[in-house]
Amino acid sequence: MSVVERLDEIYAIAQHRAAYSPEEDAAHELAAGWMEEAGLTVSRDEAGNLFGTRGDARVWAGSHLDSVPTAGRFDGALGVVAAVEAIAAIARQGRPRRTLTAVAFRLEEGARFGRGVFGSRALVGMLEPDEADLRDADGISLGEAFAALGLGELPAGGWLDRPPACYLEAHIEQGPVLADQAAALGVVTSIAGMAGLEITFTGRRGHAGTVPMALRADALAAAARAICSAHDAARRIPGAVCTIGRLAVLPGATNTIPGRAELFADLRAPDAAGLAALLSAVEAAVAQAAAASGCSVEVDQRWRYEPVPMSAAPTDALRRAIERLGLPAVELPSGAGHDAAILATAGVPAAMLFVRSDAGGVSHAPEEHTAIDAVAACAGALEQALRELAGG
Amino acid sequence: MSVVERLDEIYAIAQHRAAYSPEEDAAHELAAGWMEEAGLTVSRDEAGNLFGTRGDARVWAGSHLDSVPTAGRFDGALGVVAAVEAIAAIARQGRPRRTLTAVAFRLEEGARFGRGVFGSRALVGMLEPDEADLRDADGISLGEAFAALGLGELPAGGWLDRPPACYLEAHIEQGPVLADQAAALGVVTSIAGMAGLEITFTGRRGHAGTVPMALRADALAAAARAICSAHDAARRIPGAVCTIGRLAVLPGATNTIPGRAELFADLRAPDAAGLAALLSAVEAAVAQAAAASGCSVEVDQRWRYEPVPMSAAPTDALRRAIERLGLPAVELPSGAGHDAAILATAGVPAAMLFVRSDAGGVSHAPEEHTAIDAVAACAGALEQALRELAGG
Repeated sequence: MSVVERLDEIYAIAQHRAAYSPEEDAAHELAAGWMEEAGLTVSRDEAGNLFGTRGDARVWAGSHLDSVPTAGRFDGALGVVAAVEAIAAIARQGRPRRTLTAVAFRLEEGARFGRGVFGSRALVGMLEPDEADLRDADGISLGEAFAALGLGELPAGGWLDRPPACYLEAHIEQGPVLADQAAALGVVTSIAGMAGLEITFTGRRGHAGTVPMALRADALAAAARAICSAHDAARRIPGAVCTIGRLAVLPGATNTIPGRAELFADLRAPDAAGLAALLSAVEAAVAQAAAASGCSVEVDQRWRYEPVPMSAAPTDALRRAIERLGLPAVELPSGAGHDAAILATAGVPAAMLFVRSDAGGVSHAPEEHTAIDAVAACAGALEQALRELAGG
Repeated sequence: MSVVERLDEIYAIAQHRAAYSPEEDAAHELAAGWMEEAGLTVSRDEAGNLFGTRGDARVWAGSHLDSVPTAGRFDGALGVVAAVEAIAAIARQGRPRRTLTAVAFRLEEGARFGRGVFGSRALVGMLEPDEADLRDADGISLGEAFAALGLGELPAGGWLDRPPACYLEAHIEQGPVLADQAAALGVVTSIAGMAGLEITFTGRRGHAGTVPMALRADALAAAARAICSAHDAARRIPGAVCTIGRLAVLPGATNTIPGRAELFADLRAPDAAGLAALLSAVEAAVAQAAAASGCSVEVDQRWRYEPVPMSAAPTDALRRAIERLGLPAVELPSGAGHDAAILATAGVPAAMLFVRSDAGGVSHAPEEHTAIDAVAACAGALEQALRELAGG
């Protein structure tokens, strides 16, 4: 069965395989069957993460099988399927020096419970105290969903007593960079650091016709100025991005000067210096915009995660594997979070193989697509890199 | 009874005296009683507008008694009460050469049915064909509300066969200009022209982390740039204002680049040249912002009303009356629409006396306030101007 056929089978279970749902569970069952067919020993850990191992696992490769409500067929599933295929191919040709494990992590997507990368965080002991009480849109808690699958209570600590030598994750890029450079594959230099800022401008409501421009304190005028400056700041910092995806204007009447504007700025940068520079530039821009419009402003930093660099040795193995296919090994940061970042934070040497996203880089939508040439290249490069890393 | 006591009585009927509601009706009944006490002959026209007349009416003064849901006590009611008081005072001192009429128009506020100045438009024959079918938030049509008060069918044509020599309207400014100049009263030079633009920017949705700044088509980036430029354009045109009171960003997720931004621009200027200049500046700014952000844009002009200048003769009478009180007669445009604009459009020489709004110029809110000195000055100036215009 080809990678694409396996992706179709996983997608046929359900487009939306919510974390810790029967649908995610069915995907794990399916993958477990493929692991057994490949001669791997199947095991599951306390978080329900799935492992398919040959011997004493030292080199891991995988990703996740849960999906967002509007998912396409590649996000997460490609990394699991490609790992199973690659390890199966290596196993068919004999026993490598180091043993190999295919991994399917649980609950990578934050979509269901508002917080992601749970399975990998559980494994390495990075769960928060409130995790069991996170609730989905139907009011079901993570603890309840977990127990409903027969997994018992949420694990209290991690259990990665003997970490693997390295972890490789193949994943679609979910962006337009590789397509823009006409490349099938890339290696990830780092998982971007990110900060989330809730920003509220307060001005003075007023009648759209009766307050001269000079006497206004228009909260949207302040917000618009801040948005322009924040985008400009991101453009000046290599690899940085700034997204204002949410903006509410109050009271929201066409004939009323906005007294309040609430927005959320998502800031990302591939290295720590860039993230720090972006954060201070945006904070300065926001203060300046408020002052220029006679408004006040509050900034609430909702989160900040430092960038996580990928490890040189497994990344070099991926780069060599790509070049052996006669393809360019484009280097790019990952702007999205992944299980690889969690393992790297916990000290596991981790590397990511990015696979070109077609259809303009759209993801989390049924139009998500990666053409067969890039899928095949992904499988080939991952197999070659695992072979080298396992000394096979 | 003082002007302020009468305003309190009207407010005691209900804060919200919706157009063609029993509450507006009760306010008209109350005012009719005061007109009778003042020796005026009370009549009502086909739209239910209220007139209190001494003889063959030639000089009119008034405003409206309906109010918005969150109304204060001055908007509209002050102009009716001040007119009744002034005409009563003149009547007590003998018979002027020209006769005087106090008017209370119906449905001035657009709040209930989405379209305002109905009573004055009905009088001069400026109703639209669809007017009876306009519905309020409860689904009641204007035709039904009208009939429920025993007024029959909506009038088909106007009935101002013999227009008055002039119409004076006293009204709170609903803005900060007079307070900013420490003046109690002002004369209105013109009712501002206005245009309403529905503007939609379309870009490309994308993941907040995976699309580099250079490859984005961020609809909010375009909107923010357009908002800044539109505000700047208004600042460069004397007396012009630009308000963006409504802005929707889609899909509205913090981690998604906005693919669509919908906003509404309310543009006003005191003269026709200014309105034309503002409109073309905003349209140019919008096109430029879209192009700079790789987005497309659609602009739908929802309405455009040309400015309505006030008449020299009644305005001069108001100016002289103000100056006789030893007060400065500040000249200012009205950024809001009023019944005076409808009568002026129909050829009636009209003038407006603006009364200082305190509390920062807030209106359509319970905090709406005008201190007693300005209310007294309003009553005095209106009486003096009516006396002069009526040759009393």
